[in-house]
Amino acid sequence: MFAFSIRKDEEPYVKEWAKGHPEIEVGYTDELLSPKTAKYAEGADGVVVYQQLSYTAETLQALADQGITKMSLRNVGVDNVDLDKAKELGFEITNVPVYSPNAIAEHAAIQTARILRQTKVLDEKIENGDLRWAPTIGREVRDQTVGVIGTGHIGRVYMQIMEGFGAKVIAFDPYENAELKAKGYYVNTLDELYAQSDVISLHVPATKENTHMINSSSIAKMKDDVVLVNCSRGALVDTDAVIKALDRGKVAGFVMDTYEDEVGIFNADWRNKTFPDKRLEDLIHRSNVLVTPHTAFYTTHAVRNMVLKAFDNNCELIHGKPADTPVKID
Amino acid sequence: MFAFSIRKDEEPYVKEWAKGHPEIEVGYTDELLSPKTAKYAEGADGVVVYQQLSYTAETLQALADQGITKMSLRNVGVDNVDLDKAKELGFEITNVPVYSPNAIAEHAAIQTARILRQTKVLDEKIENGDLRWAPTIGREVRDQTVGVIGTGHIGRVYMQIMEGFGAKVIAFDPYENAELKAKGYYVNTLDELYAQSDVISLHVPATKENTHMINSSSIAKMKDDVVLVNCSRGALVDTDAVIKALDRGKVAGFVMDTYEDEVGIFNADWRNKTFPDKRLEDLIHRSNVLVTPHTAFYTTHAVRNMVLKAFDNNCELIHGKPADTPVKID
Repeated sequence: MFAFSIRKDEEPYVKEWAKGHPEIEVGYTDELLSPKTAKYAEGADGVVVYQQLSYTAETLQALADQGITKMSLRNVGVDNVDLDKAKELGFEITNVPVYSPNAIAEHAAIQTARILRQTKVLDEKIENGDLRWAPTIGREVRDQTVGVIGTGHIGRVYMQIMEGFGAKVIAFDPYENAELKAKGYYVNTLDELYAQSDVISLHVPATKENTHMINSSSIAKMKDDVVLVNCSRGALVDTDAVIKALDRGKVAGFVMDTYEDEVGIFNADWRNKTFPDKRLEDLIHRSNVLVTPHTAFYTTHAVRNMVLKAFDNNCELIHGKPADTPVKID
Repeated sequence: MFAFSIRKDEEPYVKEWAKGHPEIEVGYTDELLSPKTAKYAEGADGVVVYQQLSYTAETLQALADQGITKMSLRNVGVDNVDLDKAKELGFEITNVPVYSPNAIAEHAAIQTARILRQTKVLDEKIENGDLRWAPTIGREVRDQTVGVIGTGHIGRVYMQIMEGFGAKVIAFDPYENAELKAKGYYVNTLDELYAQSDVISLHVPATKENTHMINSSSIAKMKDDVVLVNCSRGALVDTDAVIKALDRGKVAGFVMDTYEDEVGIFNADWRNKTFPDKRLEDLIHRSNVLVTPHTAFYTTHAVRNMVLKAFDNNCELIHGKPADTPVKID
């Protein structure tokens, strides 16, 4: 097995996997998989990959020419794989659908609490030598009613953390979890959740139906000084509507790990270049907005899971066994 | 009743208390209590106060000259009250010993999690337009063993928050809490706690015996990459020893809301002045140190408690009843 684009933070987990599988020869490089680098995998039965760069027809062909058609992604998304070509060449592909729900839930919880405590204002004061505490007063998490939209893995961990702080937690999900329902967490409608919550955190997948579910009309139904948290999908939030609500003080703070126009902007270095999005630039510099560039997932726990799971998957494929998390390419 | 130095953030709670006690006439000012301003309280039966400025013999005399000897502090400390003079004049004084354990525990928990997630590094990158996530990887709170030294009110709330995140929590306290003991939280010695903990958080009062309990010798007993959290008392930590351990990478991060030399430095504005403490200045600007100037207590919940409790106390005093939290001045 051969792995491409192994980052420094992934290397220990590649070694951990290799150590646990002495019968498998494991090679790897920090270079991306391309038609040119595909030859590094010569002699391997399968490849383990993760990159933003497209897996083009040419790249897949270069692997197939060496007899390699078993490819395991260390991430979830397959948008950049030429699936038609993969099918034509008889590729078997796996992905890693879940890295670490806690990574995202913890990040959402920490950023929520930071907005409530005004840490951005306070940190800037301290950095500049102003060590006076007033008037930078915090709100305690335990005093908040936290409304969680979406009670899948991530939403449930977020609920548990908020309860650890002592907050009152309510939830909405069209598909209710039986255990949570029995414990009385669910309100009946989104409108009820909007009306009761001091903090609203989104933990739902993006669909056509919920695009811009956070908009002027839903914000109007919320309490004054509400804190909005989106560590889910950018498309869920009408960013312009939130900015208007921040400007008039209706929304007290906004946590965004995702952004509706993030593609091509996040995970790039814009220093010494013209920043490509004025609206995002404005949000980044607001004292009551916490922007992170889709990094909520990025923990040692998650990266370890991504690496180990991808190698496990690839190992199953090369032994002719059904992989645990295959990608359908028909 | 008359209250001095009421800040903007205290005003709503003064009004809340006054509304609940229509039989009491309540007046207040934003000015500090001094020999000059004491006359504002003319006609009152008691005063409610909170300031860094000393309550001098002259100030106390000015109150007594108006027949006012019932004084309720909105804070805990009485170091700045001339207690000899107070005794001579027959003053009755109350304080507020506990504002909000959660305010401090929540702050300690948030800052702990921020160190683990490298938010200071990440925030600075984002502020400067570098939106790449690698190599700024986070550690999840749930993967940590968190050692809590001191299991009073604040320590116990901190434990509960860390458990909400899913961390493994262990504790040490010479005075063990029966309930925690039954649940198996306690290790037998500080050395055991040092050896097992990825995060160590202090929640003990400062005594002669525990001065600099965190020093080179105790740090040597800790795990590599330990995170140290002191939202308790500055004297507990040998700051030089921690700096050395940060420099050689033994300690991964340091949260300090208190500092052994904080008196006269914290809660002041040093912009456009020479910063008075080089060591503190260095700590403030380190990417793996989070300094706050003794602000952990400063939440709306705490301030409300401080105001309401002080007014309650003063009300009891002026009605000749024993106050709930009197200050012994004998």
